Amino acid sequence: MTAIYGRVALIGLGLIASSMAHAMRRAGLVDEIVGYARSAETRDIAREVGFCDHVADSAFDASKDADLVVLCVPVGAMGAVASEIGPALKPGATVSDVGSVKRTVIAEVAPHLPQGVHFVPAHPLAGTEHSGPRAGFAELFENRYCIIVPVADSDRDAVARLADLWRGMGALIDEMEAEHHDLVLSVTSHTPHLIAYTMVGVADDLSRVTDSEVIKYSAAGFRDFTRIAASDPVMWRDVFLNNKDATLQILGRFTEELFALQRAIRRGDGDHLQEYFTRTRAIRRSIIEAGQDTDAPNFGRAKAKGD
Amino acid sequence: MTAIYGRVALIGLGLIASSMAHAMRRAGLVDEIVGYARSAETRDIAREVGFCDHVADSAFDASKDADLVVLCVPVGAMGAVASEIGPALKPGATVSDVGSVKRTVIAEVAPHLPQGVHFVPAHPLAGTEHSGPRAGFAELFENRYCIIVPVADSDRDAVARLADLWRGMGALIDEMEAEHHDLVLSVTSHTPHLIAYTMVGVADDLSRVTDSEVIKYSAAGFRDFTRIAASDPVMWRDVFLNNKDATLQILGRFTEELFALQRAIRRGDGDHLQEYFTRTRAIRRSIIEAGQDTDAPNFGRAKAKGD
Repeated sequence: MTAIYGRVALIGLGLIASSMAHAMRRAGLVDEIVGYARSAETRDIAREVGFCDHVADSAFDASKDADLVVLCVPVGAMGAVASEIGPALKPGATVSDVGSVKRTVIAEVAPHLPQGVHFVPAHPLAGTEHSGPRAGFAELFENRYCIIVPVADSDRDAVARLADLWRGMGALIDEMEAEHHDLVLSVTSHTPHLIAYTMVGVADDLSRVTDSEVIKYSAAGFRDFTRIAASDPVMWRDVFLNNKDATLQILGRFTEELFALQRAIRRGDGDHLQEYFTRTRAIRRSIIEAGQDTDAPNFGRAKAKGD
Repeated sequence: MTAIYGRVALIGLGLIASSMAHAMRRAGLVDEIVGYARSAETRDIAREVGFCDHVADSAFDASKDADLVVLCVPVGAMGAVASEIGPALKPGATVSDVGSVKRTVIAEVAPHLPQGVHFVPAHPLAGTEHSGPRAGFAELFENRYCIIVPVADSDRDAVARLADLWRGMGALIDEMEAEHHDLVLSVTSHTPHLIAYTMVGVADDLSRVTDSEVIKYSAAGFRDFTRIAASDPVMWRDVFLNNKDATLQILGRFTEELFALQRAIRRGDGDHLQEYFTRTRAIRRSIIEAGQDTDAPNFGRAKAKGD
């Protein structure tokens, strides 16, 4: 396969960037990968794992002569990184990102990019509860959606080229406007994460139920919540601070429904409960049919100790 | 291995009963398994799958001459079943159950059991999102806890014998009082299920986010919730109606925490969010170390289409 880009710079070297590097190399999608992370420890690990051809010591150096620069840092850090790399970018280069929020990222990154540089924001809907440069793997994006969110003046050729790169890593491509993206992700990702964090925090707090009981008996449902509540804290802090409106809107809907179910429990309204619980079954079936989850019981959990 | 019981009757033939039958047979724990389910279709499937030696046409017939009768019906049906089988029970027999709630089950079942019959309530903390007589498998209880909740006059020999049966099916045994059981399970199981049902229902309701988007982009977190929200609706209706006090108590704590996080988002209090999200990571680690979940990314989901 002919490479889609010559030199690619990855700014931030966590789960997503390291997975991109593995996936791009496996498919021969680019000629050269340069990486940079703010933490010296992360840079050292990246050198040790070796998923980049070169790890630079500044975002500026990493971005020089790059054909594509992908910002893979927490959403709250995107603006500062863009301001640092702006002067290093060559004309015709493309800048993209992998942030879970698009409106604020666009607002904060775009002003720092010079004329002649293409900005094509994107968001691959893939991840695991593990983070850092050792967590990446080439298969992360296979059959997962990558949503491209072009800005008003995004060059269509630059959009098509970035889409080809993501397809080469196994992803399915959709395009969406930033505001709609942020609402959809609030439903399918941000609010579920907040709720999982909340439930796990409550369990941790309860003095009458010792830690050990919460842990021993977690297989009755609770453990499912702990996975997404183990995701990267800084990344998620920034998501909520930067997708405030949509998150508060969906949280409002969530508490409204929760209170209706709570009232049904208090009043003993079994019909309401049964009807609600029946309706939600169909969604699971659709997700499995769409190839977005497995039908194996308990997610086909790997057989750990007895699982 | 010498059989622990001679004849065992399973009343209700869903996921738990069929898994028990497979597990008891595999380990040679009992001489004979008789089954009964209210629905003729379920009885026919049970006969076809063949996990019972005999499928009776009434709970009364199934329980005659049984050394152990296990009630595997939704919590709300336990009392009626107990009243039906009471007159069939032989002196010295043990009656147990697998209900997710213990206080109301004990209150509703105990009065129907004749003198000389041992009542040993129990609750295996195991399950999948699949239900019915075809869903069972012998490994379901391996390394999962079975909580035995003896009543005031439970015979200690009868308790020990039932514990042996569950150990033979691979389970770990704990004993607990009914009220404490219902509170602990409200935290580790009932409230998480209600919250998952709520979140999935909200996503289903949102008119601005089409079904197709919720489904396509579910891998960003939402799909984790859909698994437990696909559990059996009647079973869960009965759980909430019968564990009302503990569920409302834990829901109160949950909404309190959720509102605190919501306020932090509204006010832009990143420190509160980051601190909260960091704390919850440790619980996941403990669950993995306790052998109650896998450390593989994304639960080590079976590789379905691209997973």
